[in-house]
Formats: sequence, structure tokens, C-alpha cells
Amino acid sequence: MLDQQSALDLTIDDMRRAHERIKPHINRTPVLQSRYLNELTGAELFFKCENFQEAGAFKVRGACNAVFGLSDDMAERGVCTHSSGNHALSLSYAAGRRGIPCHVVMPRTAPQAKKEAVRRYGGLITECEPSTTSREAVFAEVQAKTGGEFVHPYNDPRVIAGQATCSAELIEQVDGLEAVVAPIGGGGMISGTCLTLSHLLPQSKIFAAEPEQADDAYRSFKSGQIIADDAPNTIADGLKVPLKENTWHFVSQFVSDIHTASEQEIIDAMKLTWTYLRIVMEPSCAVPLATILKNKDVFAGQRVGVIVTGGNVDLDRLPWITG
Amino acid sequence: MLDQQSALDLTIDDMRRAHERIKPHINRTPVLQSRYLNELTGAELFFKCENFQEAGAFKVRGACNAVFGLSDDMAERGVCTHSSGNHALSLSYAAGRRGIPCHVVMPRTAPQAKKEAVRRYGGLITECEPSTTSREAVFAEVQAKTGGEFVHPYNDPRVIAGQATCSAELIEQVDGLEAVVAPIGGGGMISGTCLTLSHLLPQSKIFAAEPEQADDAYRSFKSGQIIADDAPNTIADGLKVPLKENTWHFVSQFVSDIHTASEQEIIDAMKLTWTYLRIVMEPSCAVPLATILKNKDVFAGQRVGVIVTGGNVDLDRLPWITG
Repeated sequence: MLDQQSALDLTIDDMRRAHERIKPHINRTPVLQSRYLNELTGAELFFKCENFQEAGAFKVRGACNAVFGLSDDMAERGVCTHSSGNHALSLSYAAGRRGIPCHVVMPRTAPQAKKEAVRRYGGLITECEPSTTSREAVFAEVQAKTGGEFVHPYNDPRVIAGQATCSAELIEQVDGLEAVVAPIGGGGMISGTCLTLSHLLPQSKIFAAEPEQADDAYRSFKSGQIIADDAPNTIADGLKVPLKENTWHFVSQFVSDIHTASEQEIIDAMKLTWTYLRIVMEPSCAVPLATILKNKDVFAGQRVGVIVTGGNVDLDRLPWITG
Repeated sequence: MLDQQSALDLTIDDMRRAHERIKPHINRTPVLQSRYLNELTGAELFFKCENFQEAGAFKVRGACNAVFGLSDDMAERGVCTHSSGNHALSLSYAAGRRGIPCHVVMPRTAPQAKKEAVRRYGGLITECEPSTTSREAVFAEVQAKTGGEFVHPYNDPRVIAGQATCSAELIEQVDGLEAVVAPIGGGGMISGTCLTLSHLLPQSKIFAAEPEQADDAYRSFKSGQIIADDAPNTIADGLKVPLKENTWHFVSQFVSDIHTASEQEIIDAMKLTWTYLRIVMEPSCAVPLATILKNKDVFAGQRVGVIVTGGNVDLDRLPWITG
């Protein structure tokens, strides 16, 4: 069993233990490059394709670390969570692999494809309104009723240690990275990236990329304290949630800068990536490329890792096709 | 320089020499799997993702082998070809890497994205009507005018030896394959697959997959002689061309069977792959999965390689979205 700890106590050995624990349940995802996207940005981009991860998202790393770290006694009561999508189906996948129940609270507006995937992995869904306040209220009821272990989508050291395994693979796969860019919503992936790189590649820079229309992390970073918005609206539906204390710890200490992009810039970068990298990925994953294209001087001539966070997309509703 | 030879003379050493020659210019593409597609088919499927190849298609293998095998004297006059798309841009890519001119005859109905890509690689396009007869007539004019070396899209032993490197990588990447399925148009990929597997994995079976609406290879296979259709119509636009003597040699001798799929079955398999494998690939690449789903008893319980041939798609016109 994992000790409950705060993010302050996390060490690089927590990441290493997480990696050993979850390896049988996750994919070592490939790193792809595009000659054309390199020309376009002036940087050498290495895309870590977590869209090819089990359950279609990096979040399966943190979910598996939490689920497989539970004692048998705790595991028996199952796990529960709230999530706008990928954590829900990642936790359902992880719980399914261990054979324990998984209860998830999802906004009723979450993409249909994600709800169906949660059910396919055996997750049990309770719907809430698409706001942070509604989500937290409905979740409190579900947790009280089931007694399952709460695995927060990002504000949980076990989850952060799991997400940290992604950049550990990336720096094994690519030599001499000078920067890594990842999308920021609640900050789980960025926090894991900080945990790993601050120990294993301390000279590298870490950039977070955020939609202008959900720029609470940007404003938090610039003001030096957590700012949370209730129900922001962006096509990057994985990035609507606010920072919490455990992820703020990493963001405030280790992130070099946060860049933002408009909705149209995100859509353009998404279509560019589908066209030239030839991968199916979510709008959230396009925010890093959108910010690299907007800030070419920051990345020019550098070897830059880009975390492609997930690939669970409703193919009937692509943002560049108006039906 | 490569000797002009017939397919009858090709040996496994031609494949090995091709692989050494082209390695600096191609990607060793990854193999991806989907737990869900395995459940759906009852087979264990290994997708060799040539959509991630340079120029977005396996055809760059054959094109590079032909271009980099030319003597300096021959190379000086450049190369020329006709192609419904991917060979055109692959040959343009290869010629660009060697710094020689490339003239291509393309049907005026070829996807706009492919024409733009050819031009981006430096290829010079002459348009023809979308039929085999028109293509061959226009090409004769272009060849006479330029004096460039003709690199046929598939009926060329140099090209077949290049395509053969794809399954050589596949069997290094995946142990114990029992069958390989590839789409069949002119038969270049299937012929290369036959060349490699008949020598290096002779116990494995080779299946070709073809659209019902362009089933000339199927009818050729069943009747024992080449049958060619002029201008068949299918969404799988890479598979409209007929077999020729060099590819017929391999298809008639080494292919276990040819299966066909309807247009709707191809579209369904394409959407399934985009959704669960999370890759952008052309309709042609969906024909193998469509035929595996239709012939589950043939593949059940087996380890099956599936060649994903290319990823050059017009993202504004996806066949499951009617705009």
C-alpha cells in the first residue's frame, strides 16, 4: 500500500516505484516526429504519443499507480472519482484490471464516446452538471454511499507519481531534450513532468500550454496564488479544471512559463497535427503546438518534447468541419 | 546502379540490399495494437503503421530504392512516373533527397492534399484523366520530353524489393506472426510481402484485401490470369490500379487468398481504426480490417500483421461525415 502523502514529500523514487508497479498495465508509447512541423516551428519536436496509451490517455498511469498501490482491504471497497473524461475511463480500466468496482461522477456534457468507453471498462457513471461546484457535490454523495477510495484526477500524490513516468520514458527515448511542453488543466501531467525532470534533467525547461478561454493556471502562475474559475468554456475539454494545492506546488516551483492559445489557434494546431503527424488526438493535445507556433523565439533551434495527452475523440464532431 | 531485372530474378538479398540503401531516408515505423480491435476480431492484430512513414506512405521504400540505386549518369536526367497519389509524392520525396528532378503524371481527380504534398517535395505534376488508358498516354508524352528514368509505381523489381523491407521490419518487431494482411491495388506491397515472407517466414500465410468495387485482383486470382478494369470506382483510391506481370508473379504464386469488402464495410473499418487505434489513415488501409471482420474464422486465435499503407487524407472530407 502507498502512504498518503503530500506532493511536498514526493521523491524521484516514488516515480520509479510507480513505474515498476504500473508497467504490466500500460504501454511504453512511441515518440513521433514530423519533418514538416519541425520546419514550421523552427524547433525539433518529439511528440510523446499518450493517445496510444491504454484507455487512450496518459491518465491511466496515475490511475494504475493509485489502484495497484491499494492494500487488499482498501481495494475491496473499490475506487471512486470525478472527471471530465479521461481520468474516469483510466480509473475504470485500472479498477477493471484489478477486478474491483469503480464509481465515476461525470458531467452530463462529457463526450458520448468517453461515457461509452467508461462503461465498456466496467465503470459505473453518475452524472452531474458541467461545473466544479456541481461535480463536487454529486461526488460527495457517491463517495458516502459506496465507501470507495477517492482517487482525485490530479490532486493526489499517487496520481502525480504515476503521471511522472511519462516523461521518464520520454527522456529515455530522446537524448538531449532542452524543453518539454504539456497542456495544463488541473496540473497532474505538468506536476509529474516537474517531478521527473527536476531530478533527472534539471537543466531542461518545462512549459505549460493552456487555452485562453480557460486560463486560470496562467493567471495563477502570474499572480502567485491559485485562481479557480467555475465552468470555463473551451474546445479543449480536458483542460477546464483548476489547479489544486498538490499541483500548485509543482507549477509554482518548477514551471518556466505558461503560454496560452485561442480556440482557433488550438483548432488549427489540431488539424495540422492530424495532417502531418497522422495521429488522432484530442483538442487539449493541440494546445502545446499552438503555443509553440505563437512563441517560436522561445523554442527555435531546440529539442522539445511535446506531450500528446489523449486520443479519445468524437469523430462525428471534428471542429474544422461545420456540419 | 541496379540491374534491370524481372521479378522472377528477385532474391531475399535484393530486399536486404534495398534495406541498407534506403535506411537513411525512411522511418522504421512503429507497430500498434488495440485491445478492443483484438476483442472484436478474435485475432491478435499487429498494425504496421506506414502512415507514419516519410511522405506518409510505404511507397517511399520502393521509390527510395529505385532513386538511390541509379547511377550518377542516369540520375542526372531525373525520374518520372504516373501515380494515383502516394507513389507520386514518395518518388518526389526520394528525388528531392537525392537532388534530382521528378516528373509525375497524376489523375486530375487525385486528392488535393496529395497534389500539394507532391509540389511541396519538389515534384512537377502533369494531370491526366482518371483512367488507366489516359494515364499511360499522358505519361508517354512526359517521358519522351524529359528523358527521365521511369519508376513504375509497382511493376518494377526495384520498387518491389523496396516495399519488401516493410514486412522484414514487421517480423523483427513481432514474434510468431502466422499471417499478414495487406491491401492490394497494383500489388507492389503484396509482392514485397511475398518476397520477404516466402524466404524468412515461409510457414506464414499472406492475404490480400481488396474493395468489392475494384476487385480485379480477386477475379485475376480466382481465374488464374490478369484481369484489368479501366477506371473502377471506390473510396479506397489507392487501390484502383490493376496487377501487372511483375506483381502477378508474386500474387499468383505466394498469396493464400484474396478477400473483398464493400464500400460501407471499408468506411466502418476506417472509423473503427481511427477510434480505437487512434491513427489517421487512408480508406485503402481499412480494407484489411474490413476483410478480417468478414472472415473471422480464417484469422481467429492467430497473430496477424496488418499493413497500414498510408496516412495522406483530406481531413475536410471524411467518409462518415456527410456535409
